[in-house]
Amino acid sequence: MKNVLIKDIYRNTEKYIDKTITISGWIRTSRSSKAFGFIEVNDGSFFKNIQVVFEESLENFKEIGKFTIASAIVVEGTLVATPGAKQPFEIKATKISLEAGADRDYPLQKKRHTFEYLRTIAHLRPRSNAFSAVFRVRSLTAYAIHKFFQERGFVYVNTPIITGSDCEGAGEMFRVSTLDFNNIPMTEEGNIDFNKDFFGKETNLTVSGQLEAEAYALAYRNVYTFGPTFRAENSNTARHASEFWMMEPEIAFADLNDNMDLAEDMLKFIINFVMENAPEEIEFFNKFIDKELLNRLNNVINSDFKRITYTEAVEILEKANEKFQYPVYWGCDLQTEHERYITEKVFKRPVFVTDYPKDIKAFYMRMNDDNKTVAAMDLLVPGVGELVGGSQREERMDVLEKRLEEMNLNKDDYWWYLDLRRYGGVKHAGYGLGFERAIMYLTGISNIRDVIPFPRTPKSAEF
Amino acid sequence: MKNVLIKDIYRNTEKYIDKTITISGWIRTSRSSKAFGFIEVNDGSFFKNIQVVFEESLENFKEIGKFTIASAIVVEGTLVATPGAKQPFEIKATKISLEAGADRDYPLQKKRHTFEYLRTIAHLRPRSNAFSAVFRVRSLTAYAIHKFFQERGFVYVNTPIITGSDCEGAGEMFRVSTLDFNNIPMTEEGNIDFNKDFFGKETNLTVSGQLEAEAYALAYRNVYTFGPTFRAENSNTARHASEFWMMEPEIAFADLNDNMDLAEDMLKFIINFVMENAPEEIEFFNKFIDKELLNRLNNVINSDFKRITYTEAVEILEKANEKFQYPVYWGCDLQTEHERYITEKVFKRPVFVTDYPKDIKAFYMRMNDDNKTVAAMDLLVPGVGELVGGSQREERMDVLEKRLEEMNLNKDDYWWYLDLRRYGGVKHAGYGLGFERAIMYLTGISNIRDVIPFPRTPKSAEF
Repeated sequence: MKNVLIKDIYRNTEKYIDKTITISGWIRTSRSSKAFGFIEVNDGSFFKNIQVVFEESLENFKEIGKFTIASAIVVEGTLVATPGAKQPFEIKATKISLEAGADRDYPLQKKRHTFEYLRTIAHLRPRSNAFSAVFRVRSLTAYAIHKFFQERGFVYVNTPIITGSDCEGAGEMFRVSTLDFNNIPMTEEGNIDFNKDFFGKETNLTVSGQLEAEAYALAYRNVYTFGPTFRAENSNTARHASEFWMMEPEIAFADLNDNMDLAEDMLKFIINFVMENAPEEIEFFNKFIDKELLNRLNNVINSDFKRITYTEAVEILEKANEKFQYPVYWGCDLQTEHERYITEKVFKRPVFVTDYPKDIKAFYMRMNDDNKTVAAMDLLVPGVGELVGGSQREERMDVLEKRLEEMNLNKDDYWWYLDLRRYGGVKHAGYGLGFERAIMYLTGISNIRDVIPFPRTPKSAEF
Repeated sequence: MKNVLIKDIYRNTEKYIDKTITISGWIRTSRSSKAFGFIEVNDGSFFKNIQVVFEESLENFKEIGKFTIASAIVVEGTLVATPGAKQPFEIKATKISLEAGADRDYPLQKKRHTFEYLRTIAHLRPRSNAFSAVFRVRSLTAYAIHKFFQERGFVYVNTPIITGSDCEGAGEMFRVSTLDFNNIPMTEEGNIDFNKDFFGKETNLTVSGQLEAEAYALAYRNVYTFGPTFRAENSNTARHASEFWMMEPEIAFADLNDNMDLAEDMLKFIINFVMENAPEEIEFFNKFIDKELLNRLNNVINSDFKRITYTEAVEILEKANEKFQYPVYWGCDLQTEHERYITEKVFKRPVFVTDYPKDIKAFYMRMNDDNKTVAAMDLLVPGVGELVGGSQREERMDVLEKRLEEMNLNKDDYWWYLDLRRYGGVKHAGYGLGFERAIMYLTGISNIRDVIPFPRTPKSAEF
């Protein structure tokens, strides 16, 4: 008989109640007395376990009582309702067999473990309640992103991971090479001879797929990227990883307002999708990780996001009756304390801040008519601060070239990016969502290392 | 008025016919006489263009006639049916305005270009018919993969790209480093001092997420990875890229037969999804790229895949009335010519070949009782040969340790992989699908460089 999945039993109980079923899964807990015993089984399909009752009438009753935590078993029995009990039903076993045992030194015995400890057993931690919930939500969120964009006709573009250009200019990069480190080839002039490297030039790991996504938006109109990106920054914080996933939509025939509409729709869609498809997980997070989680997510879903300019934000902050660690003045970069004040204290909902000073933003952002600010937008959300950052892109060739010069960037490196402005370079816009930051927001988990299956951070690339 | 997308006009024509609509897009072709003219507009939402008719009654009639190919325009007009004409409808323009011009040296003028040439303008080629179709199919195929697995409750796992282990052992790897190539640090013993590198150890780009996926399958039961993988092989063929995407499901409480069932269901699902969602593109490929495409895809959808053992395959090949370039004997690796003979000439449908000699397969594949073969499976399809490769994994600790020894692999490097066998390491299986190879199969495109937006191959990492 085909095994029934525990998720199916929870979701379609009436189909199985009082029927004989077979399940298979791993033992989470087990206790027994002389006459009967209970095993909590998790089969991986669902956050919750199912309780299995076994009685001494089973021929291998004594052995079953000795099955260790984490052992894999197959259970045949009847699903019976248990009104009034903690769990709505249980399986009265007629047969239990061992599929694979587990050594007694299993590191995930039923007791509290710190997240720090669980990071050292990243190959086993998805079997714990908290991480089981985290990584299922991560999977559902990824799917929600694809679903949102695909249903709107967006084309998914896989932009390159290995990049031969340093156009992206967003911080330190990892070099990719097959050169022999014992014998780095040199040119006659005494420089490293990257001609001899695998790609015949210096190559690095990408920090963003945006520039390539722009090329595709000017062909397909609406596109998105979703893939790994990298930062070789030596910062050991709870919010930085060296390898993380990023999602970047890019839309043509669109301006900054269209961009904000899209980000707002997307965020609401994702939250709704996860709340609908992982209600048990969200309930768990709300109970054990962050008691404000549900309030916060509901607030986002039910709000019209506020839109203010950077200049307005600075005015609000200057008038605020609040001591900030970092001083506020027109031209300053907003710090998390400022962002949280605006979204949590002033507007109490998500806030788009737009039109930042050009000097604190990237070269590709569209210059406003005031010649001082650019058409950028950051989405600030209560509890976190910045969640999304984006802009309308500079589509005017002369303005873009001037910006490159101002920022001492080499025009030749941008030949194809400039080409896009030469041939039907219509107005377009886009933004980036750090995928892990979104997962942290959706789960209340506060360390990025705990939302990445096998995290990479300075001095750490285990597994 | 909100712009209507051309896809929507084709799919919901009755909604717009005889109505005033506004579209925006790029000029693909333009021709005009003294009294009227025609513009083919593509807005990126759809494979096909829409024809716009403009007449001299428009105040900027003369300018419109001079708009260059690739210019972005906005068109207001009435959608009228054109029974008997090549296209089912056209827009009679009441207003056409220029959004963004295009220089006259636009490299994608309407004429035949070789795929080789188009690779040099990878930032513009998605605007050509062929590549517009290829990369839309790529996007839809990616979505079909997510949809297939998510609807079956599989958990999507992002396995790491940067790997600190060389356990994967599948060929040459790219090194990832932040060391200064002008000054590689050395230990006192004269070795490279990877302690000083970013991660405190030697790191490379992943060649497969399988081992990590196994860890997750033993928590979630059914999981899949889908992300970039890398090979630093210096092979310049039409079928090899240095960076490509791979999809790897892994299922627990499952054996080789379950694995084959899954692969067969998945492949049929993907082909059906793409044929339903990109009929115009598939028709185009069938007409201009590969006249056997539709026959082949329909054959796959409508066949029950054949299953034979490697030993049976060798017997068939030995008896074959066919001159092969590579000799066939028990123990040989099957070459593409052998694979194609079996799937195209003998069975005329997809064929799973199972139970290969252990010596030509990886250490993690489950040893069969004959002690000579392992529970591996390759899926061979007409027109291509191998499309999917997988196996049941060795779950028995003692057998796995023996295999590691036999293959001179260091057990300590596999501590966590062995742990998985120690704690509820139930039978499990999985396979890998090279995403680009699937796209080549779905489109008939014969060079892998033409199904990757910005391909990376030896000596080439442009854009």
